[in-house]
Amino acid sequence: MSQNASNTSVGAKTLADVFSGKKLEGKFDYKISDRMSVMQPSAVREIFKFLDNPEVISFAGGNPSEDTFPMEELAECSARLYKDHPATFLQYGITEGYAPLRELTLDRVSRKFGIVGENDSILMTTGGQQGIDLTMKVLTNEGDWVACEDPSFIGAINDIRSYRNQFLSVPLDDDGMDVDFLERELETKKIKVIYTIPTFQNPGGVTMSLERRKKLYELAVKHDFFILEDDPYHEMRCFGEEIPPIKSFDKTGHVIYCGSYSKIIAPGLRVGYLILDRALLQKFAVAKQCADVHSCLYPQMLIAEYLTHFDIDAHVDLSRKLYAERLTRMLAGLDRHMDPRVKFTRPRGGFFIWCILPEGNSGAQLCGVLAENRVACVPGSTFDPMQWRDKPAFRINYSMPSLAQIDEGTEIVGRVLREFIK
Amino acid sequence: MSQNASNTSVGAKTLADVFSGKKLEGKFDYKISDRMSVMQPSAVREIFKFLDNPEVISFAGGNPSEDTFPMEELAECSARLYKDHPATFLQYGITEGYAPLRELTLDRVSRKFGIVGENDSILMTTGGQQGIDLTMKVLTNEGDWVACEDPSFIGAINDIRSYRNQFLSVPLDDDGMDVDFLERELETKKIKVIYTIPTFQNPGGVTMSLERRKKLYELAVKHDFFILEDDPYHEMRCFGEEIPPIKSFDKTGHVIYCGSYSKIIAPGLRVGYLILDRALLQKFAVAKQCADVHSCLYPQMLIAEYLTHFDIDAHVDLSRKLYAERLTRMLAGLDRHMDPRVKFTRPRGGFFIWCILPEGNSGAQLCGVLAENRVACVPGSTFDPMQWRDKPAFRINYSMPSLAQIDEGTEIVGRVLREFIK
Repeated sequence: MSQNASNTSVGAKTLADVFSGKKLEGKFDYKISDRMSVMQPSAVREIFKFLDNPEVISFAGGNPSEDTFPMEELAECSARLYKDHPATFLQYGITEGYAPLRELTLDRVSRKFGIVGENDSILMTTGGQQGIDLTMKVLTNEGDWVACEDPSFIGAINDIRSYRNQFLSVPLDDDGMDVDFLERELETKKIKVIYTIPTFQNPGGVTMSLERRKKLYELAVKHDFFILEDDPYHEMRCFGEEIPPIKSFDKTGHVIYCGSYSKIIAPGLRVGYLILDRALLQKFAVAKQCADVHSCLYPQMLIAEYLTHFDIDAHVDLSRKLYAERLTRMLAGLDRHMDPRVKFTRPRGGFFIWCILPEGNSGAQLCGVLAENRVACVPGSTFDPMQWRDKPAFRINYSMPSLAQIDEGTEIVGRVLREFIK
Repeated sequence: MSQNASNTSVGAKTLADVFSGKKLEGKFDYKISDRMSVMQPSAVREIFKFLDNPEVISFAGGNPSEDTFPMEELAECSARLYKDHPATFLQYGITEGYAPLRELTLDRVSRKFGIVGENDSILMTTGGQQGIDLTMKVLTNEGDWVACEDPSFIGAINDIRSYRNQFLSVPLDDDGMDVDFLERELETKKIKVIYTIPTFQNPGGVTMSLERRKKLYELAVKHDFFILEDDPYHEMRCFGEEIPPIKSFDKTGHVIYCGSYSKIIAPGLRVGYLILDRALLQKFAVAKQCADVHSCLYPQMLIAEYLTHFDIDAHVDLSRKLYAERLTRMLAGLDRHMDPRVKFTRPRGGFFIWCILPEGNSGAQLCGVLAENRVACVPGSTFDPMQWRDKPAFRINYSMPSLAQIDEGTEIVGRVLREFIK
């Protein structure tokens, strides 16, 4: 009997292997579903497995900084839960989620962002990722068109692909998704769902302008498609004025808002939510029953306690200050060291900066070379909605590394790139 | 802005409504996927919403008794986690699950049940339900045949249906799934997956004989289908000798074992697992990334602490004694009060007893009348793999009610049935 539980899910031995693009599995004789046989593991998730090496400077993750976790406050909340309600969080619960957290969340996002319409309700999910998964499962049939930004979030891309949807890749610029491009495509394509991260897009770092948000919503009403607004970074704004979520314009139920406590409290708790029309909630709740009956209750109750007894807005402000310092330092490092042939976005919040090399350079090869030089970044191919095509691009994360790592890492990135670029 | 987060997912006002079988939703204009448009919410989950009324005696749930939760021990484990590892469970983790819990689980089930083959590994899931969901997603295409016992677990039935599989209903008798029936059907049908709960079946309460287990595995090898062995009740044996899991015979990777900590520790923690060939794990991990990135870390670490510092086998023995007492009392109550025209199974463990009325009686109507008489049971239609056809049957749970509730409830069930049966 083997007791080996090591993480052999792709068999990659080095970070360079992860980026090589070649198929990493060995012999595989099982007949699995068509939907999953075309799937590759997320390179980003695989990269995590190499980050135990303390020598590696990671610009690769999408993690919040541990320095922002309100550990002592949560410990206090936890002690209270064990004192007052242990049987509640140990027993089965209701699929829609822990009722007080649903109320507290609706109340907060309604007050702060005006995104809860008259007919809207809320479904708690196992992280924002499950919100994406349930949306695709409930709304799309195999073969339906789903549009997303190019590049986009690998977790969403993989999930959309797993439902065998057709992708429409919509270009991204400094004002977010190119809505005019989308409008032209809508003349010939019946789109079922638009997946967008309008605020501090992953991996682009850019934010959709107010004008485009309004136009996108108008197109949704006109052409009767759903907008899945994935908004995990909304409160991670470091600079500039807030732009309201698309959901705040929604009067017709066309927008499903996917929120998360991962960035504002802690991601390991896996607490996200969907805000959507109550009529849709009925069907989403059935899909949620199939997926995992209900999300783990303890973290939902923990967050409810936290929201009740502590000032989350003050906590978020502290996190923003920490990220603002790192973002400023990262942009300064890139300004100082980056080869002028490389263009990069200048986000005002979120976690990511997107770097574009001159045409003809391979982002995948570059990230392999960077890994050999102790810096982990994620190649652009990872975020390609079509087929993991190699791209002359890569993503930098600034939420995780320390200021010293940012200084050292940007110097290495600059040096490697000067030699690498053709 | 409405802040209403009440649980309006089916709009049922009474338990009788839940059992009426009529469509409970109001106006619904959204175009959702074909896979979800045919779905109904689980009546069992809906019933939970009515159980707040302390007057109701619930024989309806599938919950473990709160009396079995090791609350003080878990509180101690939790305090240690907050002291030693808060950043670990608050940060993102690895998709396959918390490594020490994977090792501890493999070690325990290997030692106790011999179900970990040379090529096997483990994937931690958000409850056993997610194990079912991932299996269907990874292994089946729309239209593939999936076989299951009739009656079977509503959570599995709904999930299988959500992948638009075709159902083969295999009859159940006192020795479990009728494997001879299955063998005949295999002559003309290409089955992709067999879903079975061989031990203390839900809702049947029966256990598949050793002979049938071996034959089922032989058929899987011969006809090249997968067996999804759902085994949450395995350790809830009150009487009789243990029968080894089907997975213990597996030398070929045809059996995927779905286990859970829900019944042996606590269900609200949502910690389950799949034991499967390492080659399959690669694909399951990608599906898991799409579903929820990874399961909540805190409960995984909590259970790992518990397994390390406490004697889970001794704890399980205490739970079994508690359930044995309730099972004995329930069977005695039914023996005393039940109309002789009603047949019921005599389980030796698990949580459920299956009651069969004479043909021509409606289980759904009966459960409505029982609800009006303050006893909640679940009608047989809920467990029908085909189309929620009404059946002259209902399910009784004995893990949740107290001995006094069992005495009072069986008396009511007997009285109602004497008047009800045609």
